[in-house]
Amino acid sequence: MTVASSSPAGLVVSAHSADFVWRAGGAIALHARQGYAMHIVCLSFGERGESAKLWRQGNMSEAKVKAARREEAEAAAAALGATVEFFDIGDYPMRADKDTLFRLVDVYRRVQPEFVLTHSLKDPYNYDHPLATDLAQEARIIAQAEGHNPGETIVGAPPVYCFEPHQPEQCQWRPDVLLDITEVWDDKYRAIQCMAGQEHLWEYYTRVALQRGVQAKRNIGITAQKNIQYAEGYQSIFPRVTENLA
Amino acid sequence: MTVASSSPAGLVVSAHSADFVWRAGGAIALHARQGYAMHIVCLSFGERGESAKLWRQGNMSEAKVKAARREEAEAAAAALGATVEFFDIGDYPMRADKDTLFRLVDVYRRVQPEFVLTHSLKDPYNYDHPLATDLAQEARIIAQAEGHNPGETIVGAPPVYCFEPHQPEQCQWRPDVLLDITEVWDDKYRAIQCMAGQEHLWEYYTRVALQRGVQAKRNIGITAQKNIQYAEGYQSIFPRVTENLA
Amino acid sequence: MTVASSSPAGLVVSAHSADFVWRAGGAIALHARQGYAMHIVCLSFGERGESAKLWRQGNMSEAKVKAARREEAEAAAAALGATVEFFDIGDYPMRADKDTLFRLVDVYRRVQPEFVLTHSLKDPYNYDHPLATDLAQEARIIAQAEGHNPGETIVGAPPVYCFEPHQPEQCQWRPDVLLDITEVWDDKYRAIQCMAGQEHLWEYYTRVALQRGVQAKRNIGITAQKNIQYAEGYQSIFPRVTENLA
Amino acid sequence: MTVASSSPAGLVVSAHSADFVWRAGGAIALHARQGYAMHIVCLSFGERGESAKLWRQGNMSEAKVKAARREEAEAAAAALGATVEFFDIGDYPMRADKDTLFRLVDVYRRVQPEFVLTHSLKDPYNYDHPLATDLAQEARIIAQAEGHNPGETIVGAPPVYCFEPHQPEQCQWRPDVLLDITEVWDDKYRAIQCMAGQEHLWEYYTRVALQRGVQAKRNIGITAQKNIQYAEGYQSIFPRVTENLA
Amino acid sequence: MTVASSSPAGLVVSAHSADFVWRAGGAIALHARQGYAMHIVCLSFGERGESAKLWRQGNMSEAKVKAARREEAEAAAAALGATVEFFDIGDYPMRADKDTLFRLVDVYRRVQPEFVLTHSLKDPYNYDHPLATDLAQEARIIAQAEGHNPGETIVGAPPVYCFEPHQPEQCQWRPDVLLDITEVWDDKYRAIQCMAGQEHLWEYYTRVALQRGVQAKRNIGITAQKNIQYAEGYQSIFPRVTENLA
Amino acid sequence: MTVASSSPAGLVVSAHSADFVWRAGGAIALHARQGYAMHIVCLSFGERGESAKLWRQGNMSEAKVKAARREEAEAAAAALGATVEFFDIGDYPMRADKDTLFRLVDVYRRVQPEFVLTHSLKDPYNYDHPLATDLAQEARIIAQAEGHNPGETIVGAPPVYCFEPHQPEQCQWRPDVLLDITEVWDDKYRAIQCMAGQEHLWEYYTRVALQRGVQAKRNIGITAQKNIQYAEGYQSIFPRVTENLA
Repeated sequence: MTVASSSPAGLVVSAHSADFVWRAGGAIALHARQGYAMHIVCLSFGERGESAKLWRQGNMSEAKVKAARREEAEAAAAALGATVEFFDIGDYPMRADKDTLFRLVDVYRRVQPEFVLTHSLKDPYNYDHPLATDLAQEARIIAQAEGHNPGETIVGAPPVYCFEPHQPEQCQWRPDVLLDITEVWDDKYRAIQCMAGQEHLWEYYTRVALQRGVQAKRNIGITAQKNIQYAEGYQSIFPRVTENLA
Repeated sequence: MTVASSSPAGLVVSAHSADFVWRAGGAIALHARQGYAMHIVCLSFGERGESAKLWRQGNMSEAKVKAARREEAEAAAAALGATVEFFDIGDYPMRADKDTLFRLVDVYRRVQPEFVLTHSLKDPYNYDHPLATDLAQEARIIAQAEGHNPGETIVGAPPVYCFEPHQPEQCQWRPDVLLDITEVWDDKYRAIQCMAGQEHLWEYYTRVALQRGVQAKRNIGITAQKNIQYAEGYQSIFPRVTENLA
Repeated sequence: MTVASSSPAGLVVSAHSADFVWRAGGAIALHARQGYAMHIVCLSFGERGESAKLWRQGNMSEAKVKAARREEAEAAAAALGATVEFFDIGDYPMRADKDTLFRLVDVYRRVQPEFVLTHSLKDPYNYDHPLATDLAQEARIIAQAEGHNPGETIVGAPPVYCFEPHQPEQCQWRPDVLLDITEVWDDKYRAIQCMAGQEHLWEYYTRVALQRGVQAKRNIGITAQKNIQYAEGYQSIFPRVTENLA
Repeated sequence: MTVASSSPAGLVVSAHSADFVWRAGGAIALHARQGYAMHIVCLSFGERGESAKLWRQGNMSEAKVKAARREEAEAAAAALGATVEFFDIGDYPMRADKDTLFRLVDVYRRVQPEFVLTHSLKDPYNYDHPLATDLAQEARIIAQAEGHNPGETIVGAPPVYCFEPHQPEQCQWRPDVLLDITEVWDDKYRAIQCMAGQEHLWEYYTRVALQRGVQAKRNIGITAQKNIQYAEGYQSIFPRVTENLA
Repeated sequence: MTVASSSPAGLVVSAHSADFVWRAGGAIALHARQGYAMHIVCLSFGERGESAKLWRQGNMSEAKVKAARREEAEAAAAALGATVEFFDIGDYPMRADKDTLFRLVDVYRRVQPEFVLTHSLKDPYNYDHPLATDLAQEARIIAQAEGHNPGETIVGAPPVYCFEPHQPEQCQWRPDVLLDITEVWDDKYRAIQCMAGQEHLWEYYTRVALQRGVQAKRNIGITAQKNIQYAEGYQSIFPRVTENLA
Repeated sequence: MTVASSSPAGLVVSAHSADFVWRAGGAIALHARQGYAMHIVCLSFGERGESAKLWRQGNMSEAKVKAARREEAEAAAAALGATVEFFDIGDYPMRADKDTLFRLVDVYRRVQPEFVLTHSLKDPYNYDHPLATDLAQEARIIAQAEGHNPGETIVGAPPVYCFEPHQPEQCQWRPDVLLDITEVWDDKYRAIQCMAGQEHLWEYYTRVALQRGVQAKRNIGITAQKNIQYAEGYQSIFPRVTENLA
């Protein structure tokens, strides 16, 4: 769980141990390849709510499910070139107390991310997701405060991006960034294949990537040379600061 | 009105002859300095609706007002390093027929802009502004169509940015881009000073630039080295396509 | 159609000849009683779209329908203490050209209203209503412009209130003002009874007034002395400027 | 173009000649199979804006493009079991005058649809689409009015559904209905294959149908027996009236 | 509190003991008559916040208020043909811990509802209402999870409907379903009359039912044979899955 | 902390000890001058999150920071003519339990405010702000309930106004009230100067006041006699009840 302090870094806050794969695997692999130290926090293993296939095998316990999910997530993170840690705070329902909040603040200060990826602001199908978003955002704000653990290095104002939920329109999620992940698609698909317990989602998220790829091409224009095949959509929380609009 | 075809270009669609100064002067000057051929289309001179000071002088005619406003706008465009042309379609109310639409399509195809700046989507204080936005958007779409004047070079999918209206919250305008214009502020302020007829707005828009500057600093974080003093806010219509999220 | 220039005035822009009765009859009567010269513009008689009962009588012509509707509307305006004029621009569909727009601008300048009442911003059940709102708003803006008929007295910035549509939630209409019309309810109900062709709406709009009355009481608090029984809801377009928040 | 008056009917208003295929082909085929007389109005052939492949062949004229597009659309309509007519009002830009509006009103009264399918309310990528929606809605309202062509049979209040635009989130489109089209998918795909000029969209809309299928399954619950593979999403304009909530 | 497992069932989650009467009494009676086992959970008795009349009698205690409110609610439930249980978690403020959440999950699994009725998503006049909605939704999600009490029968994906709040527009509530309750209006009004402590609301909610009835007629069209007099409005959280759009 | 019971009163709920100065200082001073007993509750001192300058001095402790901030806030309140009390519940993160809620309810009942000022509904830059808004709103509702501490005098339904957040558009805050604070600007600026620890905000909020002043003038019209220079913007939560629309 060592995070190289000399490279720029990115932080991913994932409610369950597989979310980061479907929703942000491309961004993780792409920035890892660009030299970013990508670090993932899984708040839970998704052991209760997102492990139906395991539970249906019978003769199962929460400990066994967690162990299986951890293994999958570690393999996926490795495939993407990222480090991963598990807060193990439980799911369905997920609840976060001040200790969990401060623990995540510590991660922010240690990682010093240049950008943050997390869930959508709303999700009527999943109450753990917006909770993770809220936690990621509040921790970021506290990590910026001089008055929290005075003397530590505070963080700047890294942009926060919401990755794509399962049913985007129902979550009032609207992408304002389309990230071209064509060159790392193979890595993402290898990570996806680590998620043995949710095989029904493999093709679903392959299609998501293809659709976003087509849309990305539309938004740069038919005459652009660039050949985009796969993309991921993100919704920004904060305005970006720039010096060029092209 | 020659537009250099060898440099990248940007297009500004301004309802009245002064809008581009208050709302996008910084972006124009900044990209001009970066080598973009910045071209401005003023749909009207704002002769009826935005020339109160001139009309109050008495002994005035529409022709005189237009001439004065044209002179101001040309001086401002020069101060910003941009070319400007006037469609002279009238204001208060502004109406655009198919000829005007196709004339703007021609501009798109001639300029081949990498990005487009225009008004907000709504403005309960000014009906000409959203009309200009609509015109700019529909012209862009037609300029992309192979079936319009077949054989001409179509345009790609340049991003469209809405610049800041006078009362942003009332227009449901929300900036998702803050453009650092510190280095070209002097140019913008010189352009502002060309608008002799609307002196009451000089300080208003100086304060706008300062406020957006403070906000830009907030959104990159207190620890960033960059010293931003002046900024302009923009709202994107389309998702941006990128390969990096930092 | 004389409008007393010495009293303060209010202007109502009604798409069809009965809209002002159901939706703003209380406000008209109340302000008339307070000394305002209340003036109503009916853009059409609602002869095609809102006169089903008349058409079903058979042996009917558009001229006959218009005459009947005009008579009803004049009686209703009189019951409310207001003047009324008819633009007769047709309905279903309603269309407004520049002449109609300038005609309404003339009314603004003649009436010099302290406030304006018109339709909601959206209405999926009725395309004439938002068109009337747009017309009322654009005319107000032009009436403010020195460059339109220079030399005439321009208008200030009268607040614009959207009155209640038939199915408020479907029109995305949300009242931010509840006007206590208890003391003029009898006048409003007399005006309502002038609308012989739409008897099915009498009780509907009585209930609307009672519901808004209950809500008004809720919003001043159960301990307030004031006994409100009937109210009308309005949605403001512009922020109000005030010196007291109580 | 005969519409059987004894069967219930459905009406589709399509801006360009291919829209109905991608966006509503499943609904058309499904209801045709259920005994509905499905009728399609294509406002234009999409000859300028959506026929890039044809124009790129060279040696092309607008007449040739229209003829090719008409042929494709007729074949697709036949594959779906529907009738089709073409208003040929032009595209890019599309404009509709009163004659077009009344022509569509006539269709409403002739077809007497039990439901209407048309475009989304917004589409920043395509100005013809929302125009078609507006036209479909205003025509429906006029078709309900006794005062329009008195004596004709008016229409009831058929629900209006917006079909899926190309980039749903950017159009602020949110499906509140998921229509199971599994049993007619083959028909829809045959219709899709008629669109030779837009082959790049075949797989895109196959994936759309698969994604909506997965979502439909999610929204009936994992324990439901029903096997849904393909679906289409729709957004309702009006509340539905029912006697059962299950 | 036995819930017949052989009939289809519906579940109502009501923050206070009277909410289900005003807001969903028609739906409860209607589905009970259709053979659904309708079950109501009252999270509190509304003993602190919605029993003003009782408290004003003087010589009152919380226990007495609760007893009176329980009696009323049981009588109302009986009048509607439903079973009812009370969680008694307190009101003003209402707070729900994990135990309450799991208790509601147990109800879901026992009842196996085909649909769920609860409060609106927002209510600035009442903080207990959205809390009840959140609880109802999170419990539904957990009840779907194999990992919660493995071995129990999980629930499907029953649609969730938000019933009408007291001031609908202020709660951003918009009905997309209008339920015809004409045939059970007498049952609902009998249930309403059980609420002796809130007599001021009897006529208010009678008028609500009449207004929604008029609107329901509007939305099926004036030519429909059906005579609707009373209706209830509902807002769906999830898209409905269907095979017919008429 | 004595609140005169004979004068009308206003209540301000401020998350941190300086918020009331920047955001509502004008309203406080203005109403104090009008004879209102203005009372401020500071939930925290902003000791962790908004005291960066103090912490950077080194050799600092939370107690010292709190003392300094208390002193500043008391001086500012005095400059505005208001009383102030401190709940000292901590910040970054702020959390409020039932005791805090009831403590604020007690303040409501003691102060009996005619209006309430607090934070915006959303703020992605600051999680304490919306928490304060929620607390202020829930306490207001409980203070209205006869069943809470029966026998005490309940409060009416004072309007609640959200004051301006630091980055208004990002907080989805939209002013619908512009309060003319020109005559008390000097008081407000003196209060601002008490905030020694946040000198970088002095000019920022001076410019905010000037911008809102210009907008206020726009919204009463150019012909109005009134000379407004400084204003504060507010967003209402509830509809206002009135008898006059001018």
